[in-house]
Amino acid sequence: MIVSRSTLSVRYAETDMMGVVYHANYLAWFEVGRTQLLRECGVVYKDLEAQGFRLPVVEVGAKYFRPALYDDTVTVVTTLAEKPLLRIRLDYEVRRGEELLVTGFTVHGFINLQGEPVRPPAAFRTRMAELFGRVS
Amino acid sequence: MIVSRSTLSVRYAETDMMGVVYHANYLAWFEVGRTQLLRECGVVYKDLEAQGFRLPVVEVGAKYFRPALYDDTVTVVTTLAEKPLLRIRLDYEVRRGEELLVTGFTVHGFINLQGEPVRPPAAFRTRMAELFGRVS
Amino acid sequence: MIVSRSTLSVRYAETDMMGVVYHANYLAWFEVGRTQLLRECGVVYKDLEAQGFRLPVVEVGAKYFRPALYDDTVTVVTTLAEKPLLRIRLDYEVRRGEELLVTGFTVHGFINLQGEPVRPPAAFRTRMAELFGRVS
Amino acid sequence: MIVSRSTLSVRYAETDMMGVVYHANYLAWFEVGRTQLLRECGVVYKDLEAQGFRLPVVEVGAKYFRPALYDDTVTVVTTLAEKPLLRIRLDYEVRRGEELLVTGFTVHGFINLQGEPVRPPAAFRTRMAELFGRVS
Repeated sequence: MIVSRSTLSVRYAETDMMGVVYHANYLAWFEVGRTQLLRECGVVYKDLEAQGFRLPVVEVGAKYFRPALYDDTVTVVTTLAEKPLLRIRLDYEVRRGEELLVTGFTVHGFINLQGEPVRPPAAFRTRMAELFGRVS
Repeated sequence: MIVSRSTLSVRYAETDMMGVVYHANYLAWFEVGRTQLLRECGVVYKDLEAQGFRLPVVEVGAKYFRPALYDDTVTVVTTLAEKPLLRIRLDYEVRRGEELLVTGFTVHGFINLQGEPVRPPAAFRTRMAELFGRVS
Repeated sequence: MIVSRSTLSVRYAETDMMGVVYHANYLAWFEVGRTQLLRECGVVYKDLEAQGFRLPVVEVGAKYFRPALYDDTVTVVTTLAEKPLLRIRLDYEVRRGEELLVTGFTVHGFINLQGEPVRPPAAFRTRMAELFGRVS
Repeated sequence: MIVSRSTLSVRYAETDMMGVVYHANYLAWFEVGRTQLLRECGVVYKDLEAQGFRLPVVEVGAKYFRPALYDDTVTVVTTLAEKPLLRIRLDYEVRRGEELLVTGFTVHGFINLQGEPVRPPAAFRTRMAELFGRVS
């Protein structure tokens, strides 16, 4: 299990007239957490794109418990719980200190430039095998 | 079962460097569909807010089958399948002509200006009772 | 002088905690107006991109007189006042009925896929010459 | 003259299908720079709002020289060049290392909760007088 933490300051642009962060904006924060976790695994997502791979979101879910507010400092805790095979699932928690604000997950699959599903890049598979071990 | 259709043109601002609509932006389209469905039910959401109610998203989910592209005309089909009680669930399909692009759902609960959960406004309950009947 | 009108409904996603539309979001509305004006001139922007041209914004300005509110119906009035040469300037007014909310402008220049400045596509030049006349 | 620096990582959500940051998103970065500069001056913007003041943007301008790209680390250099009176003007540069990407400015005026123009809060005026001196 790999866990990564990213810290963000809430922007005014991210709020809505309810006075809190608009619910869709947490998904962009999940993306920040995901980029960070991959980087900590030695995978730089923009390099994957430069090599002709894309890793779109095929499913997303989120539950909202408490709202994040403008100028809050929040932490996105991103977890890769299982060795990814064709599909990659990441889990997220958005926290403000000890308070849990939002939980969520995303599922991804690699595609090529023609939009066709492909196996993960070799370097990615190797890195995941190193991190999770052969047996996981 | 109440169904509403909203038509949108995809904005350049809604795309990302993958050349398709960024996944979080579909949630804003769900919101467009929801506002429209409520209006067709005789419920104007901004009036609910003016009366001191808020209807935040407490859960969201989406599955992405095919991407929407810049300048596409897409339809959001919003469905209220069951008479809402304390929680309101709406389902969404985003279509481009006959093609299904994205499906999703949101769950909402009414809160007051202090952020406390409250029963739906009386006028809302009455309207839903009319639409769904006593027995539903 | 070419003038085009686009009508929009303000989305909740476009508001901020000040209870009004976040100022940056008007720029996306300008883009809607621009796409529409070009289309009415017979120029489909996505086709230009398919032909290897890009028309990025090189300058933008906006003045905010009154705020647009959630669920407002607003009109973007887009004007191409002069025959575009290397640079294209468009002017915008955002109106709610008779009320003027925001004015703005954008300046654009064509680039190729390598990001180098290029002359407008031949079909674009021809179309503009037809619309503005030889002498303009 | 007061100068503040904020560092940002470019999010995928901020790009568009041109493969670069969508032009309107720089305005949200200006906002990050502005919040930071005010904080370094001892003014916490959210506290101003809690006291019943709002500081909307009344004018914005930006020039785009080179695009920011996904995963770039960029710096927003925000400058308050003159002691603000009724109007507050801030200038911005977005840089990637030594490269200048975008310049811009915003002009703001204080309003009260009714949306009426008001003088800046007393604490704000005092702080600015301390920073800029009586004669500036």
